[in-house]
Amino acid sequence: MLFDQITIVGVGLIGGSVGLAAKARGVAGRVVGVDRDPDCIARAAKLGAIDTGTTDLAAGVAGAQLVVVCTPVDRIAEVIVTAARHVRPGTYFTDGGSTKSNIVATVQGRLPAGVEYVAAHPLAGSEKGGAENGRADLFVNRVTVLIVGALGADWGRTVTVGRFWEALGSRVVLMNAEEHDRTVASTSHLPHAVASGVAAITPMEWLKLTAGGFRDVTRIAAGDPDLWAAIFEANRDATLAALTQFTDRMTEFRTLLESRDRAGLVRWLTEGKQVRDALGT
Amino acid sequence: MLFDQITIVGVGLIGGSVGLAAKARGVAGRVVGVDRDPDCIARAAKLGAIDTGTTDLAAGVAGAQLVVVCTPVDRIAEVIVTAARHVRPGTYFTDGGSTKSNIVATVQGRLPAGVEYVAAHPLAGSEKGGAENGRADLFVNRVTVLIVGALGADWGRTVTVGRFWEALGSRVVLMNAEEHDRTVASTSHLPHAVASGVAAITPMEWLKLTAGGFRDVTRIAAGDPDLWAAIFEANRDATLAALTQFTDRMTEFRTLLESRDRAGLVRWLTEGKQVRDALGT
Repeated sequence: MLFDQITIVGVGLIGGSVGLAAKARGVAGRVVGVDRDPDCIARAAKLGAIDTGTTDLAAGVAGAQLVVVCTPVDRIAEVIVTAARHVRPGTYFTDGGSTKSNIVATVQGRLPAGVEYVAAHPLAGSEKGGAENGRADLFVNRVTVLIVGALGADWGRTVTVGRFWEALGSRVVLMNAEEHDRTVASTSHLPHAVASGVAAITPMEWLKLTAGGFRDVTRIAAGDPDLWAAIFEANRDATLAALTQFTDRMTEFRTLLESRDRAGLVRWLTEGKQVRDALGT
Repeated sequence: MLFDQITIVGVGLIGGSVGLAAKARGVAGRVVGVDRDPDCIARAAKLGAIDTGTTDLAAGVAGAQLVVVCTPVDRIAEVIVTAARHVRPGTYFTDGGSTKSNIVATVQGRLPAGVEYVAAHPLAGSEKGGAENGRADLFVNRVTVLIVGALGADWGRTVTVGRFWEALGSRVVLMNAEEHDRTVASTSHLPHAVASGVAAITPMEWLKLTAGGFRDVTRIAAGDPDLWAAIFEANRDATLAALTQFTDRMTEFRTLLESRDRAGLVRWLTEGKQVRDALGT
C-alpha cells in the first residue's frame, strides 16, 4: 500500500478507473471520491471505484495523502489551487489531464508550502465516458507521462507520484510540458479532430455503406464534445501546428491524385504505412 | 449448392475469403483459383480456400459457371474481358473491386453473347492482405453492393449473382455505379487517405505516446500502397470531391480554434459525434 487515503476529484471514466485500479491493486487503503454531480458519486460508489464520496471538495481532500484530479482539463488547475488550501502539508497532487503546459503554468507559485503537484497524463481513455465505463486495467501497459521541468523536477516528489501511476499498471515516461503538448497534439488531439471531420461530412444515409475502415477512423468522434473542446482550447497552438502539417500532407495527396502520379501516390501511401507498421497492431 | 464450379481470379485476402466462405457454406461444388503468382495459389490451396489452382487464366475459367474476379481494381476489367473469351455461354462474372464506374464502363459492350457481368463490391476487408488473412466469415453481415443500371439491370442475372453474395453471408444492396463510387469515396477512400496522412506526419519516436485513438484512426494506413493507389486513381473525381468537403470541414475547425469560439467548437464536434453515434459501436 502506497497511501492510506487517496482522493479522486472527478469520478468519470478516468477518475473511476483510477479508483478501480487503486483498489484492485491495493495501492490505497481508502479511496474518496469528489464530484460536483451526486449521481456520479453514487454510481462510482456502487461500482466499487470509491469507498465514500462527497460533493464538498474541501471535506473530500482533507485526509488525503494524494489527490488525483480527473476533471475536464479546463478545471484541473483551479481544483488543485482551491483544494490545496484544505490539505495537510506533505500532500501530493497529480492529475489525469490530456494537456499540461497551461495547467502547470496556472498552478505554479500558488501552492502552500509542503504541498506538491506532479502533473501527469495517463495515455488511456475511451470514447465512452463515465465511471460506468471505467476499468481496473485501463492503465495496464499504457504510458503515463510525468511532467518534469517547469515546476522543478524534484526527485522525491517525482518518485512518489511516479510510483503511484506505475502501481496502477502504467509505464512512466518523463517529459517537459511543452514537449508533451506538442507530441499529443499530433498523436491524440489532431487525430480526434480528423475523426470528427470524416464523420461529420458523411450523410447519415451513407452509413450503411461503411466497413471496418470507417468505423476505426471515426470511432473517437463519439467522444464528449465538451471535454474535447476544452482540450483543443488548452492545447490550441500545438494543435494548430499539427493541423497545418496534416493539411500540407493532404494537399500533397491532392496534387498527386490530380496529376495522375501513380508512383508518387504509392510513395505517399508507403510513408504512412511505414509509420503505422512501426506501431504494430 | 448454387454452382458446380466457381473460379476465383486473384486469391489474396478477398479472393481467399470468397473461396473459404463458398466451401464452408456449400455454395460451390468445386472452387478453382487463378493467380499470376504460383505461391499465392499454393498458399490458398493449403488453406483450403481453393480446391485446385492455376496461373493460366483461360484454363482456370473454362469450366466455371461463375467467375469471381478479386484482383486489384486496375486489372479487373481487363481480366473479365480476356477471360470471357474462354468461358461457355451462360457463365456469369462478378468481382470484388472497391470502385465500379470505370470497371463497368470498360467492360460494357465487350462480352460475348450469353456471358453476363454483374459488378459487385463486398464492403469487407483488412489492412492485412493475402489469402492467409482470409476468413470464411469475412462477408457475414457485411453489405455487398450490386451494381445495376449501367449495363442494364437484368433481373435474372442480378438475382443469380446477388444470391451468390448473399450465400456468402452478406446483405445485398442495389445501387448504380456512380452513386456507389461517390458514396465509398466518403466512407472508405477518403478515410484511408486521412489515416495515412495522420500516420505520415507522426515522427516515429512519438509513437510511444499514442493510445487507442491514434491506433484506431491510423489502422488502415497499414494497407497495401499499390492496391490503394489503384483504388484512388480508379475513383479519382469522387475522392477529390470528398477531400474538398473534408478540407473545408477542417478549415472550419481551424477558424473556430483560432477565434477561441468554444461554443462553436462544441457544436462542430457534436455534428461529428451525431454521425458516429448513428453508426453504433
